[in-house]
Amino acid sequence: MSQYTAPIRDMQFVMRELAGLDAVAALPGCEEVSPDLVDAILEEAGKFAGGVLAPLNKIGDQHGAKWQDGKVTTVPGWKAAYEQFAEAGWTALACDPQYGGQGLPKLISTAVMEMWKSANMAFSLCPMLTNGAIEALMLRGTDAQKDMYLPKMVSGEWTGTMNLTEPQAGSDLAAVRTRAEPQGDGTYKIFGQKIFITYGEHDLTDNIIHLVLARLPDAPEGVKGISLFVVPKFLVNEDGSPGARNDVHCVSIEHKLGIHASPTAVLAFGDSGGAIGTLVGEPNRGLEYMFIMMNEARFAVGMEGLALSERAYQHALQYARDRIQGTELGVRGGPKVSILQHPDVRRMLMSMKSQTEAMRALAYVVGAATDLAHLHPDEGVRARNQAFVDLMIPVVKGWCTENSVDIASTGVQVHGGMGFIEETGAAQHLRDARITPIYEGTTAIQANDLIGRKIAREAGATIQGVVAEMRKVQAELAAKDGDFTAIGRALGNGIQAVEEAVAYILATYNADIKAAHVGSVPFLKLLGIVAGGWQMARAALVAERKLAQGEGDAAFYQAKIVTARFYADHVLAQASGLSYAVVNGAAGALALSDEQF
Amino acid sequence: MSQYTAPIRDMQFVMRELAGLDAVAALPGCEEVSPDLVDAILEEAGKFAGGVLAPLNKIGDQHGAKWQDGKVTTVPGWKAAYEQFAEAGWTALACDPQYGGQGLPKLISTAVMEMWKSANMAFSLCPMLTNGAIEALMLRGTDAQKDMYLPKMVSGEWTGTMNLTEPQAGSDLAAVRTRAEPQGDGTYKIFGQKIFITYGEHDLTDNIIHLVLARLPDAPEGVKGISLFVVPKFLVNEDGSPGARNDVHCVSIEHKLGIHASPTAVLAFGDSGGAIGTLVGEPNRGLEYMFIMMNEARFAVGMEGLALSERAYQHALQYARDRIQGTELGVRGGPKVSILQHPDVRRMLMSMKSQTEAMRALAYVVGAATDLAHLHPDEGVRARNQAFVDLMIPVVKGWCTENSVDIASTGVQVHGGMGFIEETGAAQHLRDARITPIYEGTTAIQANDLIGRKIAREAGATIQGVVAEMRKVQAELAAKDGDFTAIGRALGNGIQAVEEAVAYILATYNADIKAAHVGSVPFLKLLGIVAGGWQMARAALVAERKLAQGEGDAAFYQAKIVTARFYADHVLAQASGLSYAVVNGAAGALALSDEQF
Repeated sequence: MSQYTAPIRDMQFVMRELAGLDAVAALPGCEEVSPDLVDAILEEAGKFAGGVLAPLNKIGDQHGAKWQDGKVTTVPGWKAAYEQFAEAGWTALACDPQYGGQGLPKLISTAVMEMWKSANMAFSLCPMLTNGAIEALMLRGTDAQKDMYLPKMVSGEWTGTMNLTEPQAGSDLAAVRTRAEPQGDGTYKIFGQKIFITYGEHDLTDNIIHLVLARLPDAPEGVKGISLFVVPKFLVNEDGSPGARNDVHCVSIEHKLGIHASPTAVLAFGDSGGAIGTLVGEPNRGLEYMFIMMNEARFAVGMEGLALSERAYQHALQYARDRIQGTELGVRGGPKVSILQHPDVRRMLMSMKSQTEAMRALAYVVGAATDLAHLHPDEGVRARNQAFVDLMIPVVKGWCTENSVDIASTGVQVHGGMGFIEETGAAQHLRDARITPIYEGTTAIQANDLIGRKIAREAGATIQGVVAEMRKVQAELAAKDGDFTAIGRALGNGIQAVEEAVAYILATYNADIKAAHVGSVPFLKLLGIVAGGWQMARAALVAERKLAQGEGDAAFYQAKIVTARFYADHVLAQASGLSYAVVNGAAGALALSDEQF
Repeated sequence: MSQYTAPIRDMQFVMRELAGLDAVAALPGCEEVSPDLVDAILEEAGKFAGGVLAPLNKIGDQHGAKWQDGKVTTVPGWKAAYEQFAEAGWTALACDPQYGGQGLPKLISTAVMEMWKSANMAFSLCPMLTNGAIEALMLRGTDAQKDMYLPKMVSGEWTGTMNLTEPQAGSDLAAVRTRAEPQGDGTYKIFGQKIFITYGEHDLTDNIIHLVLARLPDAPEGVKGISLFVVPKFLVNEDGSPGARNDVHCVSIEHKLGIHASPTAVLAFGDSGGAIGTLVGEPNRGLEYMFIMMNEARFAVGMEGLALSERAYQHALQYARDRIQGTELGVRGGPKVSILQHPDVRRMLMSMKSQTEAMRALAYVVGAATDLAHLHPDEGVRARNQAFVDLMIPVVKGWCTENSVDIASTGVQVHGGMGFIEETGAAQHLRDARITPIYEGTTAIQANDLIGRKIAREAGATIQGVVAEMRKVQAELAAKDGDFTAIGRALGNGIQAVEEAVAYILATYNADIKAAHVGSVPFLKLLGIVAGGWQMARAALVAERKLAQGEGDAAFYQAKIVTARFYADHVLAQASGLSYAVVNGAAGALALSDEQF
């Protein structure tokens, strides 16, 4: 049975030493945030994740959500866990206190979210989608809509969904065809079919609040003719109780490679006269609202990459400690040892560990910057942090999720033949991880956003500022010796690779956009690797200072330096090859005719 | 429904222009091999693979082999396909004519094997394992054993298995505990349990011939006390007909991530008095025999990596051609286009295509070298080719299989959200591929063999000869311009990376074997990438010559040059990072104590 223990020590280190918990706690509205409170939250969340959610992860995979006659039954144990989850207040953690939320900063909810996703990704999708729906209503809902839906969604009594995709639309939302007919009384009747709706139907709560993209009759073609509606499964009576069943029904759920316990619904709206909904915000601005919420959702999926990597690492490490096989290398006739003693198993585990820590560091730093961007009293600080967040969201999403597939695959490899046997559980992490580079915008979509909106449009201003910050860390490393020299050298090579690739993108984006796009995904990976290396180097420098001061757990800090060293030699070392592909790789990618494939 | 069309044009190109089909055809014993014969075999095999085996691949995955009360039922359609397969003579292709085989060279059977594995990997494992058992009996069986078993195994009337692993043994065969008790009449009673036995039980044939590693009562400890036995499911009567049921039974089959249609059996020997077997070869030399056959088996699994990559590529390409989504980049308001027009989809497909072609080229070159090593009249030529084969087998096995996981994963990504839906079929290739870097020796085991037995033991003699061959190709490229300059530059960087890594391994192997082993898997990937790039460069040079001569299909040859260019910029570009990890990566990998993980 795969256990999960929340990596609280590393979370605390990253929050305090790299992400600036103090600075977040000093923000207006964060007065209650103290180190003790944070520790208490992490401890409680860790208990819930390890004790309640993690043990359900495997049965969730094996049993899966079931569809019959339009109803979806979740996995045995799911409903009780969900009730406990809501009762303990976890659904409300990051929500606005006006509607019953706890209003905690993003940095803290990020660490807690990591735990849910590590423990049981399929479960975590339900509150995640509800949060997205809450955000949409907070952002553009009327007071009546907010009063009707938000308190019960924040408390977890009801859940929410996001209905974007249709069979012919996929990533291209311009092609959305679902239509909304005004009824003259302020309501609309919705007709159409939506696919890939996470927790679009389930038995966890009395009601489900769907947010739906649809077209008004007079809407313009394309992306500028899409509006956002709120369509509850059960209409809500004046007193807030659920009323008549609305005309939205689950036609089927998908048979997927992973996240079996998360029902992925096909929803039919209006098959029996029209599903009743109300407009959110202004007509024809639905896609714009989606884009505003997108940072949040993409960040959360990036966290899934981190979280699954952590889980796969813990799983593989446990196996490597337990599995006795062969003798120590170079010791003839010695006793049998655990496979953790074998250099290649160590290399694989270090690769999993170091990349997971790099992802955590970068994601939490972005989480803290989000708090500063929202709450800091100084407009310049807010703007600077928002620009950093905007730049890094596609990196956190794309890089962490692509990594998670490789890392979960490495986890299978550590298990050898047992990794291929489903009962072992290692394969589930790989299957679950495989969706993360796809949904909420594929890696290509993240990468196009990165090089287009986030770099070319502003002529590289923000990325050049980030590179300057990285150079400062490199200079600090250069003044030291030993492992720090090696880390500094690899980081320096990595930064240079980023600079070369950025220069190419800026020179090419307007002149030859297809050529620029060929390099977009390699560039996203490059920037992720180097930004992760930057944070690992910062961690190593902090660790050195702590060791010099004789503070804290020496073994933990020594490990931070070693892990940064491994990351430098094995992961940062990939940077120059990626940059080479960005700068040189368009010709070969674009020269074939369709028939020559 | 996923189709498979055997890539006959590329196979012919590689066989003729890169692997030296003419030289193979000129070998003693290969007199019948003509271009026409080869074309006819490829065409017939292609028809069988595409028409009979490929359509069963998906139902094989969905239905899976079933175990009940000790019996295994294969997937509906399997038995009929197997009978056709045997009737058409495909089981006998590479076998000795003395026992009914066709004795065709390895180069040809390699191409045919690729087709079976692309079309239906789970099916292909049955004849593959039978071939392994045939090899073992050919190698060390008595005349009586050969006469009893080989004709029916070659004809496909019976199948064979290899029984090595036990629960406590895994990759460490020194730990094998199954025992063999001599009965004084030349037979032995076998007692023990074997796991992970591919097609260890099934309903395709009347009899199954198990080759089993076990210990004699007086055997020394460890690897030098293991003997090889042949243990049929049904004892064989004097007249060759199946007699009494032997005491070997299938206790269960595994529930696996992939290759669901291939029954992976747990076999119990001797639960009711002892399974009767006879000794193959001399006592206590079983592991040595296994090692002799290992090249064959490892090569075959390497071919699975190639074959699944080809299948995943074809699947993704078809989807990319069919799926209409978005408009052409840079064209506002233009018509919707297929996703094949999007630069990142093109990059992904080129990545799949170029690596698949590089693997095919290297594997076939190794296949042809095997023929030369076995059959060439000149002892020096035989030895040189054998050394090349020995060096390259772990690379073909490790590199092609690791690639196949990435390539099948990229295939899922090309499909977007549909890739995660099992009905689409793209995910099956990923699940099937995931076993290939594990069985028949994990990538780490291949890599240890590569740097130890194949490089350090002979002080790098063979690898340095290969590097010299690569340098010649690089020199030829350097004399040209355009794409060839780019290919030559990337190949040159790759060769230098190999040289640096080899120098490190030679300097370190005896001084610090753990440090050398940390770099072993990165080195294996490095050598695979560069050896593949060497073959791609050779292909581009051939294509240029053909184009200059106005010979053949110009579009095909132009595509060869473009594909080599892509491989150079995107794949060969990774070489320096891998070399860096080999040379610098030991310190970070080995410095943590067990507790610090």
